[in-house]
Amino acid sequence: MAEVQIFEGALDKGLEGIVACSTAVSSIQDNTLSYRGFTIEDLAQNSTFEEVVFLLWNDRLPKASELAEITATLSKEAALEPEFIKVLKTLPTKGVHPMAWLRTAVSLMSHWDADAGSNEVAANSRKAIRLTAKMGTIVCAFDAIRNGKEPVQPKVGKSLAWNFMSMLKGGQEPDAELVKVFDTCLILHADHELNCSAFATRVTASSLSDLHSAVVSALGALKGPLHGGANEQVMLMLKKIGTIESAKKFVQDALDAKEKVMGIGHRVYKNGDPRAAILRKISETLTKKIGKPELYQMSIMIDDTMQAQKGLMPNVDFYSATVYFSMGIPIDIFTPIFAVSRIAGWIAHSQEQYANNRIYRPRGKWTGKLGQKWSAVGSRG
Amino acid sequence: MAEVQIFEGALDKGLEGIVACSTAVSSIQDNTLSYRGFTIEDLAQNSTFEEVVFLLWNDRLPKASELAEITATLSKEAALEPEFIKVLKTLPTKGVHPMAWLRTAVSLMSHWDADAGSNEVAANSRKAIRLTAKMGTIVCAFDAIRNGKEPVQPKVGKSLAWNFMSMLKGGQEPDAELVKVFDTCLILHADHELNCSAFATRVTASSLSDLHSAVVSALGALKGPLHGGANEQVMLMLKKIGTIESAKKFVQDALDAKEKVMGIGHRVYKNGDPRAAILRKISETLTKKIGKPELYQMSIMIDDTMQAQKGLMPNVDFYSATVYFSMGIPIDIFTPIFAVSRIAGWIAHSQEQYANNRIYRPRGKWTGKLGQKWSAVGSRG
Repeated sequence: MAEVQIFEGALDKGLEGIVACSTAVSSIQDNTLSYRGFTIEDLAQNSTFEEVVFLLWNDRLPKASELAEITATLSKEAALEPEFIKVLKTLPTKGVHPMAWLRTAVSLMSHWDADAGSNEVAANSRKAIRLTAKMGTIVCAFDAIRNGKEPVQPKVGKSLAWNFMSMLKGGQEPDAELVKVFDTCLILHADHELNCSAFATRVTASSLSDLHSAVVSALGALKGPLHGGANEQVMLMLKKIGTIESAKKFVQDALDAKEKVMGIGHRVYKNGDPRAAILRKISETLTKKIGKPELYQMSIMIDDTMQAQKGLMPNVDFYSATVYFSMGIPIDIFTPIFAVSRIAGWIAHSQEQYANNRIYRPRGKWTGKLGQKWSAVGSRG
Repeated sequence: MAEVQIFEGALDKGLEGIVACSTAVSSIQDNTLSYRGFTIEDLAQNSTFEEVVFLLWNDRLPKASELAEITATLSKEAALEPEFIKVLKTLPTKGVHPMAWLRTAVSLMSHWDADAGSNEVAANSRKAIRLTAKMGTIVCAFDAIRNGKEPVQPKVGKSLAWNFMSMLKGGQEPDAELVKVFDTCLILHADHELNCSAFATRVTASSLSDLHSAVVSALGALKGPLHGGANEQVMLMLKKIGTIESAKKFVQDALDAKEKVMGIGHRVYKNGDPRAAILRKISETLTKKIGKPELYQMSIMIDDTMQAQKGLMPNVDFYSATVYFSMGIPIDIFTPIFAVSRIAGWIAHSQEQYANNRIYRPRGKWTGKLGQKWSAVGSRG
């Protein structure tokens, strides 16, 4: 047996710089984010979320018939089983974090999935479709249930973005411009190399656990304020700041106190997150549209000051906050929306993990005592 | 900003040899497993599970008053809220993997936890007690519900091991010897350095997500056949083999085909898992007690042959299989039982992670295409 090389160079650094696995899902190179080799700018401008889902899972763009098929299948599979909705309605929502509710709901969803126990490629493909199709429906069901309303089922034949924007407003016809923006947001958030939740997916999948387990782990990781929770925090920060004048003072105070500003800086991008550049433009347009341009102006004040004084650039969460807010999306749904998109990437990562698996089992560096001896409880003083 | 060192030496090897973090929870050194510096043999012989829980969370053995307090608190908190039981009864069980059900139930449990949203140390301590106290009750509730019976609530004043053995049999007085054996099993499984589920706990906690999310991720990882699912697989294997004669042929066939044998070998222990040595003795006693000594004899036949011919030793799962089976525990509950114990370690790992956190975010090695250009769907042929 070959001797195992022990490497301690990334101790307590969140595996920074450690290359954990091969991947061909998405790449970050020279500040360019690509999915399967296509730049995010190219896809955001030309593609649909459904097409990006196909791309992420198949390593190529779909042919016309394939695109029609995946779009139709995702639309058809977006509805929730009546029995599942019945149980969802019994889950407490009061004081429950939307991501905690979503974590429970997605775990629960597997109880109705005939393929839940199988890790075969075909079974995983069916589960992948269901998880991706239903994630948005579940999020909208949560918002309906907590407001005492009946969950709305999606319309067959409509896109995931159309249905999400419709279901969130009780089933009404959504604004076509907002549907387009939302679809772009779904594309922008669909994958991001080995981010914490994609890594959580792979760690759980690596015991050859099932796809729902892997996705539920990812949802748990995404929930944290250092990950998916950040766009929500950005919006709460902007609302608290309130005015452009206060924003100036806020960012200066943060700089003086050497405090982090939510949505600013990224471990991997040092010269700017390409998704933020796209969202910045959308934020400008939408905040004007709803008559709150100050939200955008506060944002650029913070962005520009942090760049000028610290060399730190905004990440994807910084401008998605005002984009989602301008679309009338409740602030505590921002992170669940992240999941509605990122599920596509999580599934692609699980596919890669299953196809070339070794269980994740790193080592710890022992910093505790050794050689302790048990003594009877009476003698412990 | 310091240049980040990139390390590719463990690519696609499940982070083998990568030292991810400092830890003082448990250590594996020279084939000795210690919790907080106490050997597993010392604790298995002298301690109780409740005492080990205190040790794992506090880095020292409890004083008499502290041991009395944690034992009483865990016993008191083991009961489930009636509202929670009501929802648990609505969860489908037919065809549902017990670990999938447990994953859902533990996620759901947070909906009634007033501390669910807080990551403060005191809130996490309260949640730690509740999670550890209730895990066994939830597992027994699953077994009751799927059999159309009313879940049994635990008896205040009894140990977690006593209550588990009682609740699993509908609330009857358990055999004192089996309670002692079960308590020893809980001690043996309580932690194991950076195993896949402990690592999953830390990855999810590292986004500063909450304790229930971290534990739910761990449950998902534990579910996999390469991790917690292994003891169940060992028992199914032994049942399938059936006789000592067949065991001889089975192990030789596996060797000839260079196939793995469930429960044999371990990535970290090369000269034997110390937990297996303890469980081997218990297996011998208990299989005799139930009049099925052939289960033990088949096991040692496989164990001895694999040692002699491949130098591979049994791991914790190999003998825990026949131990649990001899105690009358349903085979598909073996992995949930692992969780009833390992929750203690997961919590200790989450404490360490929260206290010295950096988000887990390794890198991937790009193996895909780059420089692709989007083209209209009609032109894709």
